[in-house]
Amino acid sequence: MDAGIPGTAHRRGLMLMAAAAGASLAMPGPLMAAARCGGGDLSDVKAAIDKQRPEAIKRLQDWIALPSIAAEGLNAQEGAQYMAELLKDAGFQQTTIIQTDGRPGVFATMDNGSPRSVGMYLMYDVKQFDPSEWSSPPLEARIVDRPGLGKVMIGRGAVNQKGPEASFLAGLHGLRAAGRKPPVNIVLIAEGEEEIASPHFPQLVRRPEVLSALGKCREVWMPFASQTPKGSVEVDLGAKGVIEVELVCSTKAWGRGAENDIHSSYKAELDSAVWRLVKALSTLVSEDGNDPAIDDWFENVQPLTARQKELIAEQAANTSEAERKKFLGVQTWVRDLPYRQALERLASQPTVNIEGMYAGYTGPGGKTILPSKAVAKLDLRLVPNQTADEAERKLKAHLARRGYGDISVTRTGGYDPTQTDETSPVIQSALEVYRKGGLEVGMSPRLAGSWPGYIFTGPPVNLPAAHFGFGHGAHQHAPDEYYVIEAENPKLRGMAGASLGYVEFLYALAARS
Amino acid sequence: MDAGIPGTAHRRGLMLMAAAAGASLAMPGPLMAAARCGGGDLSDVKAAIDKQRPEAIKRLQDWIALPSIAAEGLNAQEGAQYMAELLKDAGFQQTTIIQTDGRPGVFATMDNGSPRSVGMYLMYDVKQFDPSEWSSPPLEARIVDRPGLGKVMIGRGAVNQKGPEASFLAGLHGLRAAGRKPPVNIVLIAEGEEEIASPHFPQLVRRPEVLSALGKCREVWMPFASQTPKGSVEVDLGAKGVIEVELVCSTKAWGRGAENDIHSSYKAELDSAVWRLVKALSTLVSEDGNDPAIDDWFENVQPLTARQKELIAEQAANTSEAERKKFLGVQTWVRDLPYRQALERLASQPTVNIEGMYAGYTGPGGKTILPSKAVAKLDLRLVPNQTADEAERKLKAHLARRGYGDISVTRTGGYDPTQTDETSPVIQSALEVYRKGGLEVGMSPRLAGSWPGYIFTGPPVNLPAAHFGFGHGAHQHAPDEYYVIEAENPKLRGMAGASLGYVEFLYALAARS
Repeated sequence: MDAGIPGTAHRRGLMLMAAAAGASLAMPGPLMAAARCGGGDLSDVKAAIDKQRPEAIKRLQDWIALPSIAAEGLNAQEGAQYMAELLKDAGFQQTTIIQTDGRPGVFATMDNGSPRSVGMYLMYDVKQFDPSEWSSPPLEARIVDRPGLGKVMIGRGAVNQKGPEASFLAGLHGLRAAGRKPPVNIVLIAEGEEEIASPHFPQLVRRPEVLSALGKCREVWMPFASQTPKGSVEVDLGAKGVIEVELVCSTKAWGRGAENDIHSSYKAELDSAVWRLVKALSTLVSEDGNDPAIDDWFENVQPLTARQKELIAEQAANTSEAERKKFLGVQTWVRDLPYRQALERLASQPTVNIEGMYAGYTGPGGKTILPSKAVAKLDLRLVPNQTADEAERKLKAHLARRGYGDISVTRTGGYDPTQTDETSPVIQSALEVYRKGGLEVGMSPRLAGSWPGYIFTGPPVNLPAAHFGFGHGAHQHAPDEYYVIEAENPKLRGMAGASLGYVEFLYALAARS
Repeated sequence: MDAGIPGTAHRRGLMLMAAAAGASLAMPGPLMAAARCGGGDLSDVKAAIDKQRPEAIKRLQDWIALPSIAAEGLNAQEGAQYMAELLKDAGFQQTTIIQTDGRPGVFATMDNGSPRSVGMYLMYDVKQFDPSEWSSPPLEARIVDRPGLGKVMIGRGAVNQKGPEASFLAGLHGLRAAGRKPPVNIVLIAEGEEEIASPHFPQLVRRPEVLSALGKCREVWMPFASQTPKGSVEVDLGAKGVIEVELVCSTKAWGRGAENDIHSSYKAELDSAVWRLVKALSTLVSEDGNDPAIDDWFENVQPLTARQKELIAEQAANTSEAERKKFLGVQTWVRDLPYRQALERLASQPTVNIEGMYAGYTGPGGKTILPSKAVAKLDLRLVPNQTADEAERKLKAHLARRGYGDISVTRTGGYDPTQTDETSPVIQSALEVYRKGGLEVGMSPRLAGSWPGYIFTGPPVNLPAAHFGFGHGAHQHAPDEYYVIEAENPKLRGMAGASLGYVEFLYALAARS
């Protein structure tokens, strides 16, 4: 998922024991129900999972060996097929590959005869990678010692999201091996375009058979490695939206200057596409580059609520700014803000980011050309009540109003923001299982990263959506992505512990009928 | 040389017969001397050159097979050695490879017992190339039919500058085969860093033995394919200067934001190096990107003289704007200027051009990162009396004054502008030989491209400097660079005709003792 460095980075140590305790105390009924009906003694399942550990690791390694990369058009059909097989093996009675206008998804259901159904969201695609930047081959998923953490698996997708997802599947295998049925029915939808911002995911979810199945669920959740290296965990109550767009400024579309690259000496009499893009981009943000300056951008932006501010104040009070800065390699917050205000910005501010840019000659030394084309790749993070469609429309209108209508704006994907109420069963179940596991639990009003939760929290599905999972990994979207298989710290769960956690979570959900 | 698309593009059809005739009529004495002493009947030399044509072509092809590319650190010593061998073979008695702080140069002298000595400038380096963009392998220098032109050699360096230089050397071989000595002594200096703006060329030229040898010369000239496809030619009286600089904005040098690339969700609380570079660049030019806006940039810029404006007005009157636009693929001139004013800008305006730019993720699709570094490659063209040192100093001061002092500005090379008087022997000899060859001759006050002529026209050398040569080629710095070996149009000379032209030029120079 496109969610920052979950479990390690911006979440590191964001513990909110007081707030979490407060939330649980507000729901004594369900908690007591969970204690009564939460699966009871799961030592048989734990034993089965431990026994199946080698197969579970091998299953994850084999999956990592088949990278599906939507941005590169790599292994879309193969990835969906593999996903469907994994689900079948784990006990889903029905798995259907659904084609879209992009890459296919997988719709799967497991009927366990339970009165309670839960929705799940998985992804089978991974981010691009350059093997030369890795210390271990990204598709070999080798297990290496990482002092301080334990044994970790290094591979593309290790933590984002194949590791947590494979751990969940290992939990289902464990239940079966222990002679149990999962305590809930499962409606699962998997996509292969999450890393390009899920452009066709709505097509999958809004299929009548999928909508109908989700209609029986009370939530949708995604397996996720939520723990910091120290073992603590943070529950996010929402996530920013995002649009990714590519801006292309070309002399051909502009109708000015030379149609193709030309010797730079002609600059004196010819317009430049690169200068045009630089000038156009420059209008999109404030002088320091930190606030969107797109016309009407803040029209629907909601300020933080008092409760959200309270959660953030507690985060700031209960965590170490110095430690977080060190972990992230951060020198300063924008405008040298105090920590609490930096955290508030992280949760509340829409952003306009240039994730990449290129024009003309980019090799060693110089080359005296006047380029005919310049490209910028932007991601724009959105907060409630902005929408992805609104953002695209306003960006285009802003450019057109300034005479930059010829600069093409191609949206490669986008999510609306998503928000889930902290009193919902999925959040309360997560808090309960984490706490039973002895973890310090925090709560964050909103993840600064993005995931397509809006597909579930928005119409027509309108369900709470959240992440859940023990375990830890890091370096998502970066070299040496890893997932902890065996943890040194007893508070941090490795793969088998995470698998058990998913089983505990299913029982907790079942208890909140 | 870094001079646009000489002989084809901005020169195409820029004929100034009236002005050229006027200039020659002003110098009747030298012209008559040339008629008397210009080598008389050169049919023996022509026959020798024609006979040696296969060797001359092979010599050029073998040279092209060894590309020296300063920007890539390729074949510097090998290229200098090869250059020295070529000169030795052509009759230079003394050839010395001179090491510099960059790539080596070659200093060569040929004493022919003449009272008249001429200086020459050669380069052995070529521009980078990507073979996948070529229709014929760039190092194979194949000869192919190009309807409308004749037989052309396609290869990197074919016209810029190995073709014209090899044609000159073939002229010397022809003289020797005809039993003649060149009519002048030759002092020659060759460099291997012209394509990166000659950063160490002053070190070569200012060596005592080189300065002493040049002290005996009345000019320095460079072999050059000056003809348009139609056969006409234009004599440039100067060239703009240039600096090439690389601007790097990094969060590390800035001391703000995250030290390394980080997930883009953090943008809300972290500064961006890319936005900073965009904002800094934006201050360097006017809103339309066409005028430098660097502080004090125009302080030393000299307006065109009445004579220069007259030459340009004649260019505009005597050439086809539509034809030039078509040839260059130009849709519009800046600010929709009338043709004459566009030509005036080309000759008179300093420029700030972004030749290349990159930051963050530039592959297919998107990648949600906040890049920690952004790079822009600029070339800035200079006019008299700007200097390269002044330009670098003012650019840095401009950025520092706006708080961008942490953005590193690395100058990779640069030339001062250069200007040569139209009454000088080298210009008058060129005009004379072209006219004797039956060509339509034009004159341009200043080339919009750049070459290191200032090393010769400025102190301590203080000599007129110019280009000379029949022949035609195009696509310098681009794929499918070519040089005409055999021309269809009788007014356009192929390689052998160009070789003879250089011999004619040496005799014309000798006559202006």
